[in-house]
Amino acid sequence: MKTPLTQALAAATLLAAGGADAAERKEAQQVVRAGSQASSAGPEANFTGRVKVEMLWPSNERSQASGAYVSFEPGARSAWHTHPSGQRLLVTAGTGLVQEWGKPVQEIHAGDTVWCPPGIKHWHGAAPGTRMTHLAVTGMADGKGVEWLEKVSDEQYNAR
Amino acid sequence: MKTPLTQALAAATLLAAGGADAAERKEAQQVVRAGSQASSAGPEANFTGRVKVEMLWPSNERSQASGAYVSFEPGARSAWHTHPSGQRLLVTAGTGLVQEWGKPVQEIHAGDTVWCPPGIKHWHGAAPGTRMTHLAVTGMADGKGVEWLEKVSDEQYNAR
Repeated sequence: MKTPLTQALAAATLLAAGGADAAERKEAQQVVRAGSQASSAGPEANFTGRVKVEMLWPSNERSQASGAYVSFEPGARSAWHTHPSGQRLLVTAGTGLVQEWGKPVQEIHAGDTVWCPPGIKHWHGAAPGTRMTHLAVTGMADGKGVEWLEKVSDEQYNAR
Repeated sequence: MKTPLTQALAAATLLAAGGADAAERKEAQQVVRAGSQASSAGPEANFTGRVKVEMLWPSNERSQASGAYVSFEPGARSAWHTHPSGQRLLVTAGTGLVQEWGKPVQEIHAGDTVWCPPGIKHWHGAAPGTRMTHLAVTGMADGKGVEWLEKVSDEQYNAR
């Protein structure tokens, strides 16, 4: 039996399905031009020294990982942190440092990649004498890509 | 009642659990050095012209997207294809071309990014006169990152 309510529900369902279908059809290939994305300073609370973050792409429902270039001036570094869903780094310029909690500091160079597994406490930054830029592809879990912890002390930074 | 079989199963379960736990604990930050990954030619079946693929990182269970540099000689391009889970491109050198099925060819330049949504038929490659390299971050769905289709004809490539 078709009551007004079931008819309204059926119409709403059709509309919703049509809307979703249209959205599906509308998702087109998207070119985003160099320099058109926001760039910002790495905040004082989470970084030591001058750090620039250039967003490349956001996480979306279909691809839950954001992309950004992060550039560290000599001596600059992130605070200790973890990634709930992991992170890939690709060094694109300069020489950097990376350290997992409880392990030695390692040098990283242009072309090197780093896999930061979920939940592993670590930091990354430039070496003392050079700038370093890396691409960061950061997995998102429940809308979150990073859990910030305490800063990297000069003693920790220089322990090599 | 503990039969030898249930005892053996219980022991196997404990071992498996212990193994998984050890693997969990063992997952450490991993640095992969530039040039240590496999590089290969883009296969004739899926590319026109000379194309080099340098793997940067594989997809894994925690991060279901692979990373690679793909370099196209002038005039070289992929075949038409779709990505079941989408793909992000970041042009790192040169000038390239990209086209979604039924839409105009677009030029892409160093620093530009491209979002290729799941299921959208498209191709990418170098412009006629220049090499082009892009980073490709390719989402994986059921272990698959790409569905290859027919090649891009010279007529399609030159339709600008």
